[in-house]
Amino acid sequence: MPKPDTAAALAAVDAHFDEFVEELQQLCRIRSRRQEPEQMEATAEFIAGSVRRWGGEAEIIPWEQSYPYVLAEVAGEGDKALLHFTHYDVEVEPAGDDADWISPPYAAEIHDGRLYARGVADDKGVIMSRIHAAAAWKLAGLTPPVTNRIIFEGKKWLHSPGLGSFVQAHADRLASDAALWENSWLDGEDRLLLKLAEKGVLYLRLTAQTLPRDLTSQNTALLPAATARLAAALAQLQRPDGTVTIPGFADDARPPTDEERALLEKVAFDGDFLRKRAQVERFTGDLDDQAAAVAIRTVPTLTVAGIAGGDMRDDVTLGIPSTASAKLEIRLVPGQDPERVLGCVRDHLAATGFGDLRIEVMATSRPNLTDHRDPFVALVADAARRVYGTEPVIEPYTQWIGNQGVIADRPIVGVGVSRADSGVDGPNENIRLDDYKAGIKHVIEVMAALAVAE
Amino acid sequence: MPKPDTAAALAAVDAHFDEFVEELQQLCRIRSRRQEPEQMEATAEFIAGSVRRWGGEAEIIPWEQSYPYVLAEVAGEGDKALLHFTHYDVEVEPAGDDADWISPPYAAEIHDGRLYARGVADDKGVIMSRIHAAAAWKLAGLTPPVTNRIIFEGKKWLHSPGLGSFVQAHADRLASDAALWENSWLDGEDRLLLKLAEKGVLYLRLTAQTLPRDLTSQNTALLPAATARLAAALAQLQRPDGTVTIPGFADDARPPTDEERALLEKVAFDGDFLRKRAQVERFTGDLDDQAAAVAIRTVPTLTVAGIAGGDMRDDVTLGIPSTASAKLEIRLVPGQDPERVLGCVRDHLAATGFGDLRIEVMATSRPNLTDHRDPFVALVADAARRVYGTEPVIEPYTQWIGNQGVIADRPIVGVGVSRADSGVDGPNENIRLDDYKAGIKHVIEVMAALAVAE
Repeated sequence: MPKPDTAAALAAVDAHFDEFVEELQQLCRIRSRRQEPEQMEATAEFIAGSVRRWGGEAEIIPWEQSYPYVLAEVAGEGDKALLHFTHYDVEVEPAGDDADWISPPYAAEIHDGRLYARGVADDKGVIMSRIHAAAAWKLAGLTPPVTNRIIFEGKKWLHSPGLGSFVQAHADRLASDAALWENSWLDGEDRLLLKLAEKGVLYLRLTAQTLPRDLTSQNTALLPAATARLAAALAQLQRPDGTVTIPGFADDARPPTDEERALLEKVAFDGDFLRKRAQVERFTGDLDDQAAAVAIRTVPTLTVAGIAGGDMRDDVTLGIPSTASAKLEIRLVPGQDPERVLGCVRDHLAATGFGDLRIEVMATSRPNLTDHRDPFVALVADAARRVYGTEPVIEPYTQWIGNQGVIADRPIVGVGVSRADSGVDGPNENIRLDDYKAGIKHVIEVMAALAVAE
Repeated sequence: MPKPDTAAALAAVDAHFDEFVEELQQLCRIRSRRQEPEQMEATAEFIAGSVRRWGGEAEIIPWEQSYPYVLAEVAGEGDKALLHFTHYDVEVEPAGDDADWISPPYAAEIHDGRLYARGVADDKGVIMSRIHAAAAWKLAGLTPPVTNRIIFEGKKWLHSPGLGSFVQAHADRLASDAALWENSWLDGEDRLLLKLAEKGVLYLRLTAQTLPRDLTSQNTALLPAATARLAAALAQLQRPDGTVTIPGFADDARPPTDEERALLEKVAFDGDFLRKRAQVERFTGDLDDQAAAVAIRTVPTLTVAGIAGGDMRDDVTLGIPSTASAKLEIRLVPGQDPERVLGCVRDHLAATGFGDLRIEVMATSRPNLTDHRDPFVALVADAARRVYGTEPVIEPYTQWIGNQGVIADRPIVGVGVSRADSGVDGPNENIRLDDYKAGIKHVIEVMAALAVAE
C-alpha cells in the first residue's frame, strides 16, 4: 500500500487537542498509587473506557502479583501491528512533600503551558498519547494504518513479577512487528531520546545462619556470628568501592561497538551535577565524564541494597546474631543471562567457603537491546525529525532496569512526552502541553511509516 | 579483737527466717522492670525501708543515666568495712512467656521449698541476703563486727553508664577493705562458686557513610555503597569464624597462670549442652571442652552484635545505601585497657583504608581480676566450707561483663544464693529457701572473719 497520508490525523490532533488534554487531566486526577488498590482498579477502568470511547477494544485482565492489566487493540488497515507498553501506577520512587507542589499533585492543573500532576511524566502522558494517536485517525474518519496493541500495566511490585506470565499467556494478542516502549523523553536541546535497551536484574537475598537462635555473646570465642560471616561473604563479592570480584561475572556482557560508544558519548551526561549531589570528588575508578556515561550503561553492577542482622537497638546488647541477610541488586547489561550470573555468584560463594549461605532469587529480568541499525529505529528517528525538527538522540544502551526482555523478539524503541527536567516522582512533576501534542503526532508518523515498512 | 562468735547471729537467722523470707517475697512482688520507672522508684523505697527497719541507714540517690541508687550503711565494730554490690532491676535479658510459670512471676509463691519469682535469683535474693546478714547481728543484740556498705543499683541501661561517676562521687562512703559482689551461685554439687573476675567491655558503633543520601543504583558503577564498604571493613577485623585479626588486639590480655588454668579446668563446663543448643558439631578452632572452658573466660572477643544499612523491605528496592552501621561488642579480659584496644581498632581501620568510618563508643568498662591468692579469697572460701560443708570452686576468670572495675582497688569476690539451674530470666526463676538461709549465714561468717583479718 502507499504510505498513508498523516495530514488529516495530524489536523485532528490540533482540532481535538483541548479534549485530549482534558481527558489526560481526568486520568491524572486518579490517585494511582500502589498503596491504594481501589484507585488502581479505577485507573484501569478509566483507561479501558477511554480506549473504547475512541473506537478501540479493551479488556481488563486481573493477573497474579499485579493490579489488573488493561489490554487494548485498535484495529488497523493492512497486516502490520505496533505494540505499546505503558504503566498506569505512579510514584515509582518515594515521592517528595506535597507541600512543595505549585498545585496539589492530583489536581492536575495547567500553569504556563504545563500540566502539573503526579505521574503525568511517568507514565500517564505516555498512556494517553498512544490512545490519542490511534484516536486521531478515527477522528479524521480513517482507520489507523497499523493495528495498535497496548499493554497498560498496573504494577503492584516494582519488578513486575506477573508480567512474564501475562505476556506468555497473551502472546497472540501481543504479536507485533515492532514496539514503542515508554521511559524516554526530550533532552535540553529539544531532541527526542530513542532508548534502545534496558538492563535486566538479578535480585538476590543472601542469608547467613550460624546458629538456630541468638545466643549470649559470652560464647563468642566458641561460636560463629552470622553478622561477621555475612560481612566476610560480601567482602568476597566486591571490593570496598563496589568493583565486582566474582569470576566470570561480566563474561557474557555484550561490549558496545565503536559505533555504539560514539553514540553514547553524544548522550548528555552531567558529571558535575552527579558528583555534587553525591558529594564525591571523583567517580569510582577515576572515570572521566565520557567514560562514566558509558560505564553506567554498559557495566554490570552489584549493589548491596540492604543489610540487616542482630540487634541494632541503640543500647548495649549482648547476643551472637544467629542470622544476617543482605539484599543484592545485580544489574545486568545486554547479553547477560540471569541464570548464568546466578551460577557465578553461587560458585564463587562455594569456592570461597560460603557455600552454606542461602541464596533466594527475589526478582529476575532479562536485559534487552535493539540493534541501532534496525530499520525500525531509523523509521522512528525519521518520524522524530519530521515532528520535532531536531535530530533525535539514539541511546543504544541505557541505565534503566526494565522488562523489555519479555517481548525481545521484535525491535523496541523507548519514546515519551516528557523532559529530563519533568521532575518524575519529585514535587511538580509536569509535562509541557506542546510536548504532549508532539508526542501524539510522533506516534501517528510512526504508525504511517511502519505500515509501509519492508 | 578476738574473732567474733557467730553463733548468736546464726541462731537469729534460724529464729527469724520466716520473717526474712516474707520480706524477700514482698520485694519480689514489685515489678522492678527497667520499662516501669514508677516500679523502679518503689523498689528503691522498699529497699531503703528494709535497711532502716533493721537498724541501718539508707539514702536514695537519684543519678544520671540510672534509676536511683540506694546507698546503705550498717555500722559495725572495729575499723573494717565490707562493701556489697547488688542491683534491683530484673529481666536483664528478654524474659520468657509468663504462661510457662508455675505461678505468676510477680506472685512470689513458694512451692516445694523454692521461691518462684522474677528476679529472685538475679538479684533480689542477693539484695535481701546482705541486708538480713547485717540484721541478724542486731536481732542477736549485737553490733555487726564490720561496717557493711551496700550499693543497690537500679539499672536503666544494661551497661550502667552512671555507675562510674556515682562511685567516684561517693568514694568516701564506699571505702572498704574488701567487697562481696553478686552474680554467682552454687553448682550442681552444692559447691559455692567464688567468682574472682569480670570482663570489661568496649562497645562501639561503626558507621560507614559514602553519600549524603541514598541515590539511585543506576549509578553504582560510579558511586560507592555504604553497605559494601561496611562489610569490607568488618571483614578486616576478624575472620569469618570470629577470630580477631586486629594487630595488637589481645596484647595486654593477662594470660592465666598455670595455677589459674588448673582452677578453671575444675569449673563445670557442659560442652555437649552448648554444642547441642548451638547446633554445631564443634567449637571454633576445634577446641575441646577443657580448652573451651578456658577460652570463654580468657580470650578477648569481638562480636558483630548487629548490622543495618539500606532498605531491607521484602521488595526490590533500587538504591545505593548512603550509610550503614554495625554494633561491635568487644569483650575485654583482665589486663586489658579499653582505651588501648580502641586505639588498635582505630589504627587498623585506618591502616586498611577505612579511616573514614565513624567510631562511636557506646559503652566501656574495665575488666577486673582479684588474685586468687588474696587472703580475702581464702577467708571467703573458708567461710563457705563452714556453712556449706563442701569445697568451694574458685573461678579466677569468668565470662561475664561487669563493673567491678569501678572498685578495683580492693579484693572482690562474687557469691550468691541461687543455683546454675535457677532459670535466671527464663520462666520459673527460683531460689531454694535452704540456699537463701545458707547465703545469709555465709555473709555472717565472712563479716566475722574479715573483722579479724590481718
